[in-house]
Order: sequence, then C-alpha cells, then structure tokens
Amino acid sequence: MIKPIILLHQVQLAENLGAVARAMGNFGITQLRLIQPKCDPDDSKAIAMAVGNERVLEEASIYQSLEHAVGDLEIVFATTAAERELIKEYHTPKTAVPLMNGKKVGLLFGPERTGLSNEDLSVATHIITIPVNPDFSSLNIAQAAVVILYEWYQSHVAQESWLHMGNTKPVNQKELHHFFQSLETELDLVNFWRVPHKKEKMWQNIRAAFLRMQPTEQEIRTLYGAIQAIKK
Amino acid sequence: MIKPIILLHQVQLAENLGAVARAMGNFGITQLRLIQPKCDPDDSKAIAMAVGNERVLEEASIYQSLEHAVGDLEIVFATTAAERELIKEYHTPKTAVPLMNGKKVGLLFGPERTGLSNEDLSVATHIITIPVNPDFSSLNIAQAAVVILYEWYQSHVAQESWLHMGNTKPVNQKELHHFFQSLETELDLVNFWRVPHKKEKMWQNIRAAFLRMQPTEQEIRTLYGAIQAIKK
Repeated sequence: MIKPIILLHQVQLAENLGAVARAMGNFGITQLRLIQPKCDPDDSKAIAMAVGNERVLEEASIYQSLEHAVGDLEIVFATTAAERELIKEYHTPKTAVPLMNGKKVGLLFGPERTGLSNEDLSVATHIITIPVNPDFSSLNIAQAAVVILYEWYQSHVAQESWLHMGNTKPVNQKELHHFFQSLETELDLVNFWRVPHKKEKMWQNIRAAFLRMQPTEQEIRTLYGAIQAIKK
Repeated sequence: MIKPIILLHQVQLAENLGAVARAMGNFGITQLRLIQPKCDPDDSKAIAMAVGNERVLEEASIYQSLEHAVGDLEIVFATTAAERELIKEYHTPKTAVPLMNGKKVGLLFGPERTGLSNEDLSVATHIITIPVNPDFSSLNIAQAAVVILYEWYQSHVAQESWLHMGNTKPVNQKELHHFFQSLETELDLVNFWRVPHKKEKMWQNIRAAFLRMQPTEQEIRTLYGAIQAIKK
C-alpha cells in the first residue's frame, strides 16, 4: 500500500507540527516534508504534542521550495478552507480518497494564519476542502490533518459493526424458544394476561423485544434463573 | 435535523474541553453536557482553545451522574479505544452515523487518562471505536470528537467533486475541435510529425491530453494565442 506524504508549507507553531505528527502515527503515515518551516521539529513543544511519535519529526525532510518538495509526486492535494480563483478540481476528503489508491500522493497544508496562497496552490493537481459549518469554519491544521488521514485510513479498514460476545455465544433460536415456553408457562400461571383475547398480541410484543435483544446463551440462563428466583 | 449531544465524563484538561468546543462549532453541534468535570468551562485555556466558540462552554450543562446526563436520550454511543468485556454492539464512526438519523443521540467521551470504565460504559446503548493504527492508538479526546462529529456532519452534506470554473466556462467540443484544427495545421506546416505514418497515433495522443485537461474557453483562447505568438 502506498501511503500519502504530508507536506507542511511554512508551518508556524511547534504545537501544531507535533499534533500533526501524532495524527500521522494514529493513521500509520510516516513521511513528513517541511517546506520553509517557521518552527523547529526538535522543539520541545512539538515533541510533547507528538506524544511518542517524535520519530516522524526526527525523520522529516526540509525543503526550501514547494516545487522541490512535490517533485517526485504524482498527485498533490492542496487543502484550502474556501474555493479560490484557480481552475482546479475540488474534492471533499471522501471524494479525494478513492483517487489516492496506488498513486504517490502528497497532502499539502498551508501556514496556520493565512493558509496556502494562490501561488502555493499552483503546484497542486487537486484541491481538498473539508465541508464544515460555514458559520464557524476555522479548522486547526492538525484537526484538518486528522480528518483527511482518518478518511484515508478508513478506506483500508473494514467498516462493519459487530456484537462483542466475549467468552459467550449468541443464543440460538431453539434455546430462545425453550426460554419463551417456560416464560409463557409462568405468565399463564400468574394470570398475567388478564383478558385472554389480549394475550396473543402482548405475547408477540414480549417475544419481539427479546428477539431485538439478541441475547447470549449466558444472558438467557441468567434471565431464566431470575424468573425462577422471583417465583420463589 | 436532530443533532447529537456531546457528553464529557470527568474531562480533565481545560485545553481539551476548549478543543472539543471548537470541533463542535466546526460541525455545527451546540449541546454540551459535562458530567463531574475536573476542569472549569470558564478556564482561560478552555476559552482560548475554543477559538471563538466559547458560547458552547458558557451554555454547557453540568451533571453529577451519568444516569442523569443520559436520562432524556434515545441512543447513547460511548467511545472506547478497545473492545471491553461488556456485550454491546460496536461500531466504527461510519457504521454508527446512519443509526443517529432522527434519533436523540448522545456521544459519550471518557476521562483523558483512563477512558470510560466498564461501569460508565454500562449506560451506553452502543459503542463507537475509531479504527486507528494498532501500534499508535492513543487518540486525543478532541481528535476523537473531531472524527466522529466530522463523520456525522458529512452525512448531511453532498459528497461530490467539482471543477471550479470562476468566471469562465468549460470549452465545448466544437470550440475544442476548432482549436485542434488550427493546432494540426500549424504542426503540419512545421513538419512536426517527421515520419508521416506516425502522425495518426501522435495526433490522437495530443488530443487525448487536451481532452483530459477539461480546458475552459479562456484557456483555449490563451493557448491559441500562445501558438500564434510562438509562430511569429
């Protein structure tokens, strides 16, 4: 898998540099290029914010020009907060990620205070802009990096939900049916339904609730035990 | 649209509280509930990190117990870094978001140092765990909030790419054909093809490149002018 390379142009604050390094670690990205950095990757604030991923700071390459920094790349996505006058293809992180597959990609972030200039943007093949609340659109550089790296990483990870089972197993329908039979017997005995013609609907609803529960074998045993204990 | 409510249980650092408030602003979320907070939403560090969204801090509700804080909610997603022993349905942010639609949802984050305890988790209806690099899985609480709120916000925003055109228009195929005709005439005149039988393939490739460019009317006029200027 080819991983994107992070390019920070004139990054200003060591804290942000460190926070970007941490985000890179979280999403398994290793290559960092700094173009005319205004802070030092050795800065203690950068190292503190990297929270253990200072290696990416130590191994960062320093460049004097954007043209050199992007020289070996196939695709350069520049990040901007808003549309600019340059005629470029704009993407959200979600539409950008499929274009990265199998390509040598750079993700370019601008200086915190001003963002990338139009001249900086001119090296980009594409633009990424993160859809945010238009009334509060100021996204920290490391937060923007988190979002884009998160989105890239997710495309390589199964997106599924699962019921965590621990050491137990889901009950099967036969076992559940036995539970239902004994519960129905107990409820019949205590005349729970009161009005006989209401039983059918009420009993369907109770069973529906237990079916939605997706209980485990152990949970059904526990519930059975609780009913027997209440009965005594 | 019903927006999720953020619940921070025993949040420790005012900086993180402020960073969560900023992320809430970025993704248009307004309701914050603090359960037994260990820092003060009025703290100057919180306000500095909120970068203009201190209103969400001022309006935060304070609760003494998790049970009270989740009392009016339909669904409570607790965030954890790893699977726990409790039998709950686990989701990634991407599989969780579709469940939020139309529901009164809480997103519960634990104390920075320890995360949520099993007892805390017991109030949750579902779990969200963000897939990250297993070798560097420590995600800052505000970064986790950014990812989940980003994912929620994106489900309400069109995910499309577009070619930003500014004041110009895409060239149509007729205009492009005229440009090709004049370019071909010039290349014929300077005997660009050298070997006549190679012309067909070379000329197809040149046209393919200009078609991929998706040029604007203005760009085609500029390119035409450049050819005429070089000719003189």
